[in-house]
Amino acid sequence: DCPLTLIAGPCQLQSADHAQMIAGRLKEACDAAGAQFIFKASFDKANRTSISGKRGPGMDEGLLMLESVKRDIGVPVLTDVHEIAQCAPVAKICDVLQIPALLCRQTDLILAAGETGAVINVKKGQFLAPWDMANVVQKIESTGNRRILLTERGTSFGYNALVADMRALPQMAQTGYPVVMDATHSVQQPAALGGSTGGQREFAPVMARAAVAIGVAAVFIETHEVPDNAPSDGPNMIPLDQMSALIDSLMKFDALAKADPIQV
Amino acid sequence: DCPLTLIAGPCQLQSADHAQMIAGRLKEACDAAGAQFIFKASFDKANRTSISGKRGPGMDEGLLMLESVKRDIGVPVLTDVHEIAQCAPVAKICDVLQIPALLCRQTDLILAAGETGAVINVKKGQFLAPWDMANVVQKIESTGNRRILLTERGTSFGYNALVADMRALPQMAQTGYPVVMDATHSVQQPAALGGSTGGQREFAPVMARAAVAIGVAAVFIETHEVPDNAPSDGPNMIPLDQMSALIDSLMKFDALAKADPIQV
Amino acid sequence: DCPLTLIAGPCQLQSADHAQMIAGRLKEACDAAGAQFIFKASFDKANRTSISGKRGPGMDEGLLMLESVKRDIGVPVLTDVHEIAQCAPVAKICDVLQIPALLCRQTDLILAAGETGAVINVKKGQFLAPWDMANVVQKIESTGNRRILLTERGTSFGYNALVADMRALPQMAQTGYPVVMDATHSVQQPAALGGSTGGQREFAPVMARAAVAIGVAAVFIETHEVPDNAPSDGPNMIPLDQMSALIDSLMKFDALAKADPIQV
Amino acid sequence: DCPLTLIAGPCQLQSADHAQMIAGRLKEACDAAGAQFIFKASFDKANRTSISGKRGPGMDEGLLMLESVKRDIGVPVLTDVHEIAQCAPVAKICDVLQIPALLCRQTDLILAAGETGAVINVKKGQFLAPWDMANVVQKIESTGNRRILLTERGTSFGYNALVADMRALPQMAQTGYPVVMDATHSVQQPAALGGSTGGQREFAPVMARAAVAIGVAAVFIETHEVPDNAPSDGPNMIPLDQMSALIDSLMKFDALAKADPIQV
Repeated sequence: DCPLTLIAGPCQLQSADHAQMIAGRLKEACDAAGAQFIFKASFDKANRTSISGKRGPGMDEGLLMLESVKRDIGVPVLTDVHEIAQCAPVAKICDVLQIPALLCRQTDLILAAGETGAVINVKKGQFLAPWDMANVVQKIESTGNRRILLTERGTSFGYNALVADMRALPQMAQTGYPVVMDATHSVQQPAALGGSTGGQREFAPVMARAAVAIGVAAVFIETHEVPDNAPSDGPNMIPLDQMSALIDSLMKFDALAKADPIQV
Repeated sequence: DCPLTLIAGPCQLQSADHAQMIAGRLKEACDAAGAQFIFKASFDKANRTSISGKRGPGMDEGLLMLESVKRDIGVPVLTDVHEIAQCAPVAKICDVLQIPALLCRQTDLILAAGETGAVINVKKGQFLAPWDMANVVQKIESTGNRRILLTERGTSFGYNALVADMRALPQMAQTGYPVVMDATHSVQQPAALGGSTGGQREFAPVMARAAVAIGVAAVFIETHEVPDNAPSDGPNMIPLDQMSALIDSLMKFDALAKADPIQV
Repeated sequence: DCPLTLIAGPCQLQSADHAQMIAGRLKEACDAAGAQFIFKASFDKANRTSISGKRGPGMDEGLLMLESVKRDIGVPVLTDVHEIAQCAPVAKICDVLQIPALLCRQTDLILAAGETGAVINVKKGQFLAPWDMANVVQKIESTGNRRILLTERGTSFGYNALVADMRALPQMAQTGYPVVMDATHSVQQPAALGGSTGGQREFAPVMARAAVAIGVAAVFIETHEVPDNAPSDGPNMIPLDQMSALIDSLMKFDALAKADPIQV
Repeated sequence: DCPLTLIAGPCQLQSADHAQMIAGRLKEACDAAGAQFIFKASFDKANRTSISGKRGPGMDEGLLMLESVKRDIGVPVLTDVHEIAQCAPVAKICDVLQIPALLCRQTDLILAAGETGAVINVKKGQFLAPWDMANVVQKIESTGNRRILLTERGTSFGYNALVADMRALPQMAQTGYPVVMDATHSVQQPAALGGSTGGQREFAPVMARAAVAIGVAAVFIETHEVPDNAPSDGPNMIPLDQMSALIDSLMKFDALAKADPIQV
C-alpha cells in the first residue's frame, strides 16, 4: 500500500504560469510530506450552472498549459473530458482522463476514454449508489483498460445539497480499484447561490481526513491562491497557503490507516 | 389553455413497423379522447446502466423510423439527443428534441439543440432542484429559441430510488414555459436490479393523474405491447392495451384542472 | 365510497370563541360543498422547535374548548395526544385521537390510544416509509381497535425540508384503512427559520388537489384567519377566507376520483 | 482534550449477569487501551418496529441490573428514558440519561431529564439537521443543566435508509458541548427487514474511525457476544470479541486527532 496521492490544482486553467505556480507549490508540499502528486485542472467547465459562468481556455490552449506543467514541474497531470472527440488528444498529453460525475453513465464517452489506455478516473454521479459503479467499471474493462480510479464526490441529499457517505469508500473499493475522495466537490451546494454553486470549504479538510483515516488511495482537492477570485468553484476550494499544513496532517493519518487497514 | 398533450411511445425504437403500430394505436386513443399527441421513441439509449443493455438502432436508422411515423401516421415526433453532432440531423426530422435528464447541465449540447430552432424538451436532472431549471432555460433562450418544454421525471431520494415532488410542476411553470410530467420515468428505481433499472409501473397512472389535476401541459408515458419483453425500461412502462382507458381518464381530470387552475 | 372528509382547524387552540368561529366557518363551507367535516386543534404543541415557542392552553382547558365546539357547532373533533395518560381523558371528549408523526413509533402511546376505542389517526413519521405503517397498524389492531386512519404529512428530504411522495397514498391504502393527506404539514420546512419551522403555504392546495385526484378519504388542512399571527405553523397554514373556494374545488376532483378509482 | 470515551454495551438488558459480563469485558479493553468507558444498555425498547419485538425487562428490574454493573464493575452507566416519569428514578442510578433520537423534540421529556441534573445525552433525530440541535440544547440549558452530550446517529436518506454526515460532528460541536458518534445505529437500515430493522455492522468500524479522526469526545457502539441472537439491533451490533481490537485501533486515531485538531 503506497502512501497517499494528492490529486490537486485549480478548478479551471487560467494560464500556463498560473498552473505552474500552483503545481510547483503543491509538488513542493507533497515532496516534503512524502505524498505522491498529480496535478489537476480543467480546460473547459462544460456544465456550469449558468450560461454566464466562465468556462476556461478550451482544449487546445488548455492542453498546452497542462503539457507545460508536466514538462516544467515534472508531475503527472489529470484533466476531464466531456466529449468523445476529446479523449484521444487529451490522452496524448495527460496521464489521467477524468469522467465528470454528471457524465458517468454516458457509455460512449467512457468507452472512448477507456480505449486511450490512459488511467481513467470516474467520479461517481450524484445520482448513483456506490455499488452502481461496478457497472461503470465493467464498461471501462470492456475496452481492455484496467487502469481505473473511482472517486466519491457526494450524493444528492434533498435540493441544492450533497452528502458524502463514508460507506461509499469501502463499497467502491470492493471493485478492486483504487478509491479517491474528492474533498472539495463533496462540500459543494449545487446551484445554491441561484446562478452558481455554493460551498462549505471549511468542511473540506473534515472530509479529507475522514476518508484518509478509513483508507483511500488518493484525495482530490481543488485549490487556488485566492478562492474567492477563482473563475469557478471558489466557495468550496481550499486556499493554496493552507495546503501544505493539510497535506502534512493527512499524511500522518494515512500512515496510521495504511498500517491498520479496516476490513469490510 | 389547450387540452392535454400526450407524449408517448416505446422507450427505444425497434422497427418502423413497431413504431407505427404503437403510434397508430396511441393516435387513435388520443383522437377519441380529444388529446393532442406527440410520438416519442429513442434511437440510442446512450446511458444504459450496464454495458450489456440494448441500445437501439442508432441515429441514421432511427431517424428513418421516426420519419415514417411522422409521414404515415401523421403525428409530430420527439426523440432525445446525446451529442452536439446529433442535433442538426435530428431536427431535420423531429419536431421536438429532448435533452436527457443526466445531460441537462451540458451547456454545449443545450446550445446546439436550441440553435436548431426545434422545440426543446429538457428533462430536469435527478440532481437538480426545480428552480434550478431557470438556469437551463436561460441557456436555451441565449440561442434565441423560446420553444421550450420542461419535464419532471423524479429526483434522487437515497440510493436506487427517486421521488416525484408535485411542487416541481408549479415551480417549473414559473419560468413561463409549459411543464410536462414524465409519469413512467418518475417511478423508475435506478439500477435497482443491479445491472438494470427497476420500476413501479403500477404507480405511473398515480403520478400522471396527480400532475394533470394540478395542471400540466403534457404527460409523458412510455408504453409497449409487452413491457416485460421491451429492450429497455420494461419495469416502468404501461402496457399498450391500458393506454386508451388511461388517456380517457386523464382527459376528465384535465378538463376540470384547466377550468379551475391553481394559482401558486 | 363516501364523499371527501375535511379535517381542519387552527394548529393550536387559542380560546373557545376562536375555535367555534373557525369550526363554524368550516362547517358552513363543508355543508355547502357536500363534504364531511372534522374539527382539528391541538391543546399542546409538545414538540416545538424552540423552548420559546407557544404551546397552547393545556389538556384540561383545551378539552373544554373542544367540547364546546362539538356541542355548539355540532361537529366531531380531533386532537393529538403526546402521553399515555392523555389518551383516556381525551377520548371522553374527542372522536378522533391523533398520534403525532414524531411519536408514531412509540408503542405504549399507540396501545393506550387504541385501547380507548376511539378512532385513531396516525401520522406517518417523516423518517418512515409508507409500507412501514403496516407495523403501526398491527400495534393498534392488537388492542382490538380497527378504527384507524393513516396520514401522509411528508418525508425527510435532506435537511430542513420535506417531500410528499404521492405513492404513499395508495401504498398506505393497501393496509385496508382510509388514508388522509395532510396538505399543510407536508409543505413545512422543519426548523428552516432557525428557531421555528418555515412553510410554503402556496403549495398546500397543490398537495391537497393531487391527493384528492388520486383518491383519499380525507384531507387535513390547518387554517387561521390571519396565519401570520397564529401562535404556531403560520407559514404553512391556509387563510380561513380561502377555505371555502378550496373545499369547493376539491369536491369536484373528489367526485371525479371516486367515480374513477385508480387500481394500484 | 481528554482521551476518547467509549459508550458501549448491549442494545437491551438481558440479565444482571449478562450486563456485568459485557461491562467487564469492555472495561478491561478500555483500561488496556487508555480509553474512558461508560456502560450503556436499555431497560425498555419503547419504539420497536413491530409489536412482536422484544422490549426488555422494564424500568424497575433494569435499574437493578444497571446498579449492579455500576457497583460491581465500577463504571458509570447510561440508559435511555422515554417518559417524563422515568427521569427521576433513572437519574438516581444512572450517570447519563439518554434522549432517544425519535424523542429529541419532545420538550417536556427533555426538561424533565435536564432537571435531574444528570448528564443528558441527546441523540440527533433522523429528521433533524445538525444545527437544529442548538434548539434542543437551549431547552436543556433552560433547566440550568449544562452537562450535555450530542450524538450523531444518522439522518433519513430515502426510505429504510440512513446516512451519517461527517459534517454533523463539527457542526454540533459548535454548540460548545461534547459530540458523540453512534457508530452502530448510524449503519441501521430502519424497518428494512419488514417487521424489524436491518443493519450493516461491517461499516460500524468505518463510521467510528472516521469520526474519531475528525475528533469526537466519545464513540457509541452496541455490542453482543452473539449479535445474531440479540433480542434487538443484532444486524448492526459489533461482536464482543472484536471490541478490544477496535478500541485499540480507535485510540491510535484519537491520539493523532487530539494532537492535531481540525479547525472548522
